Amino acid sequence: MEIRNTGEFQLIARLTAGKGYDPSVLLGIGDDAAIFQAPAGGSLLACTDMLVEGVHFLREKTPPEAVGHKALAVNLSDIAAMGGIPRHALVAVGWPPGCPLDYAEGVYKGLYSLAEEHGVNIIGGDTVRAPVVVINITVIGECHGKAVGRNGARPGDLLAVTGRVGAAAAGLALLRAGTEESMEAGVEDHMKKSPEASTGEAGARGEGGLPAAVKEDLLRAHFFPVPRLRAAAVLTATGAVTAMIDLSDGLAGDLGRLAAASGVGALLYADELPIDSHTRAAAAFLKEDALRWALYGGEDYELLAALPSEKAAAAREKLAAAGIAFTVVGEVTPAAGGLRVLEEGRIIPLEARGFDHFSPSS
Amino acid sequence: MEIRNTGEFQLIARLTAGKGYDPSVLLGIGDDAAIFQAPAGGSLLACTDMLVEGVHFLREKTPPEAVGHKALAVNLSDIAAMGGIPRHALVAVGWPPGCPLDYAEGVYKGLYSLAEEHGVNIIGGDTVRAPVVVINITVIGECHGKAVGRNGARPGDLLAVTGRVGAAAAGLALLRAGTEESMEAGVEDHMKKSPEASTGEAGARGEGGLPAAVKEDLLRAHFFPVPRLRAAAVLTATGAVTAMIDLSDGLAGDLGRLAAASGVGALLYADELPIDSHTRAAAAFLKEDALRWALYGGEDYELLAALPSEKAAAAREKLAAAGIAFTVVGEVTPAAGGLRVLEEGRIIPLEARGFDHFSPSS
Repeated sequence: MEIRNTGEFQLIARLTAGKGYDPSVLLGIGDDAAIFQAPAGGSLLACTDMLVEGVHFLREKTPPEAVGHKALAVNLSDIAAMGGIPRHALVAVGWPPGCPLDYAEGVYKGLYSLAEEHGVNIIGGDTVRAPVVVINITVIGECHGKAVGRNGARPGDLLAVTGRVGAAAAGLALLRAGTEESMEAGVEDHMKKSPEASTGEAGARGEGGLPAAVKEDLLRAHFFPVPRLRAAAVLTATGAVTAMIDLSDGLAGDLGRLAAASGVGALLYADELPIDSHTRAAAAFLKEDALRWALYGGEDYELLAALPSEKAAAAREKLAAAGIAFTVVGEVTPAAGGLRVLEEGRIIPLEARGFDHFSPSS
Repeated sequence: MEIRNTGEFQLIARLTAGKGYDPSVLLGIGDDAAIFQAPAGGSLLACTDMLVEGVHFLREKTPPEAVGHKALAVNLSDIAAMGGIPRHALVAVGWPPGCPLDYAEGVYKGLYSLAEEHGVNIIGGDTVRAPVVVINITVIGECHGKAVGRNGARPGDLLAVTGRVGAAAAGLALLRAGTEESMEAGVEDHMKKSPEASTGEAGARGEGGLPAAVKEDLLRAHFFPVPRLRAAAVLTATGAVTAMIDLSDGLAGDLGRLAAASGVGALLYADELPIDSHTRAAAAFLKEDALRWALYGGEDYELLAALPSEKAAAAREKLAAAGIAFTVVGEVTPAAGGLRVLEEGRIIPLEARGFDHFSPSS
């Protein structure tokens, strides 16, 4: 069944809506604007992100649930990077005529599922026609205590990241390598159809095919990034973090932003980056460079934090107790040093460029 | 000069930015999220709207300032319809590669100019690539006292609209009629180039060409709608308004929404609609029906309010003192009556359908 008008999408949105609102929402979807209670005393956070088909995702290669999930996740990640709590979201979607209804349903399913997981109220939106799928989400959050900006890092601070880096880029590379496949049946089906047979090169290197579980894990990292809200809460509670940013455009680019905002330089320890065995296996399989993925790959949505060296161990322990890795990956230096990377004993300038979706150079 | 990357747009956005923020903004554009102070005690409003090139506007026929203006105005109008005060906006824009830089500059100019006029802080945004120009704006407002929803109209209430209706549709019709012209030089230049010569039909009806001032006024109504924030403040201060909505999709469609939300019917007085002489002159010139424009034309962004009949005169006087017309255009009836229109002594059902941009039927 195909979409004939935006009213059908509005219907879908309503059908797939979550369990309703928490009491802070005084008026939700359905009027000219939503109304919600202001938090007593605290300050509010707001961020917005636009995802465009063909630029940020390819419709035929992306499960609709992933599109909805990611559109919200990137905003929740921004709120996490400030040490905030996401509360409300507004969702504007542009749909091309002829877009299948179950595609739209999948998008909303992914979106509402993540919203429910984090107690986010979808309080408003807009539904319009567009030549390609466009999703714009605005998230409003709260901040109790002091928000963490990008601009407080000081020379001598350590730099540390949550989780792992490079996995989302590895997933994207695997997705690109399997150009002939359809993703329409969803991510699980995609896993089953993954090109187990194309093991020629990797096989020659003695690695055989990439195990299905590895592919699935990396594709999931690309499709369903986890906003690090819990890690952010633990980190900000320590009071130790001087600057924080989420990794949307790759460690190199986002470290560059944090350093520029703080007026500092940085030295990255390339050999210490938390690049896991799955990502390394995919790099070997595709004859790619896992370090490049980690530095320039983008979309990991991990948190990069700066904090005084004497407080790093305690923060790592607290995160470990919450089941989240926190790895020291470098140090903050004076601005004059610029951005550099220590790799196998050599210090070289870090090419501080970002991640361009679907560009051949990334 | 053409756009090569989104960084150039970000630069433009910064250059054309307004005079900064009021003290309630603790952190503006430049970090992962913006931070602003919550109002003490009040509640917050939020709304979002997406404008898409080719769906909501034609790039070659719309001055870029109008695109930026309208993208914000439609949201401010939503806040006005709730009786709120707009405070902050987040602006996400998708730009097609090759879009001229001065086009982008014009869009931001229109946007920032309106924001400044209403004291709205542009606190955040996103800039991405897209196949066509897409602008998504989210506005956050405040509400002191009780917000006015769509759902409080009661049988016996009068229905009244601010300003005039049909003018924006007249402007759009004039724009469509002059298909050969370029709007790239901006709205003033467009006025000079308006098709003064194409007076054949209208001339035959004894009207000659449409005066340039009339065209300019109606094109302005289409391109630069005025959000009725002042009228909303005056109306809500009276405490008399039981329901309110802004006219985005035409009087028929928006009255239908207000009636549905309130569980009532309505009778519109067709002969009382504030269709002004400019709109009537354009209708005669183009051999169109001014009443159709008023009912189904859309984008007037006037306010439609329901209020008890005994309070209508006082409200009208207060608005008149502020220089804003407020015309009784109908009455609220029991739901069983449905939506009807009284025209030249006859009562007929009101075709309760909305306005579809650029569709041949509207």
